[in-house]
Amino acid sequence: MHVSTILAQKGNAVYTVEPGQMLTDTASLLAKNGIGSVVVVDAGKDICGILSERDIVHALASDGTSAMSRPVKDYMSKDVVTCTAEDSINHLMELMTKNRIRHLPVVEAGRLNGIVSIGDVVKCRIAEAEAESDALKAYIATG
Amino acid sequence: MHVSTILAQKGNAVYTVEPGQMLTDTASLLAKNGIGSVVVVDAGKDICGILSERDIVHALASDGTSAMSRPVKDYMSKDVVTCTAEDSINHLMELMTKNRIRHLPVVEAGRLNGIVSIGDVVKCRIAEAEAESDALKAYIATG
Repeated sequence: MHVSTILAQKGNAVYTVEPGQMLTDTASLLAKNGIGSVVVVDAGKDICGILSERDIVHALASDGTSAMSRPVKDYMSKDVVTCTAEDSINHLMELMTKNRIRHLPVVEAGRLNGIVSIGDVVKCRIAEAEAESDALKAYIATG
Repeated sequence: MHVSTILAQKGNAVYTVEPGQMLTDTASLLAKNGIGSVVVVDAGKDICGILSERDIVHALASDGTSAMSRPVKDYMSKDVVTCTAEDSINHLMELMTKNRIRHLPVVEAGRLNGIVSIGDVVKCRIAEAEAESDALKAYIATG
């Protein structure tokens, strides 16, 4: 299974914010849409960071509630690990474990084309296991 | 593979807080220890909730920064889904996907005995896949 399988199900939509957006507005965006991170893009639509729920909690822990009125760029992760639609789910699992991250933006020809969360990966692995089980049952039934 | 395999590696430690602890102190606890949730226990050490990074972001989105000086009990999830050391990793993946959660406290004989995150589950699946691959290579080499 590959990233393209996940994108075919969930679509290519990605929530983005600009580096100057206030942290409080970004927290509202995450909560409103039930998502765990947003990709930060500059005026030229290039990826310049990613901001997750964890970054918000760490911002509060470092700077208190005043962090919420500061810009996203002060707290985002700047080293963004990305993947492509052709990457395998196993490769994603390795990237997420190695980097201790839960979200991987999908990039195609330099353009943002989706995002995969650790929840999407686990959901995909369950679907895969169920499909294998069904195939085995069908094989036994016709054997 | 079972939950006990994960606990053998990561140990049985679980960070807990009381329902009356302020959200701001809980955010600091999460950040300081690099964890994504804490189990909320009452005076009798019974589990009464769980509070995650997501709950903190949702609290900020609903009530603004004043949420940070309110108690954990106002924002924790009260319906806590738990698992046991004997549960399979596949079962955990199903529980996490179905309930859209990333942490499962491990309970044995009514007592809290560990916690497993979605990151732990994915790490375990990679280790499993690598072990299978090594076994296959060894089989081919000696074949």
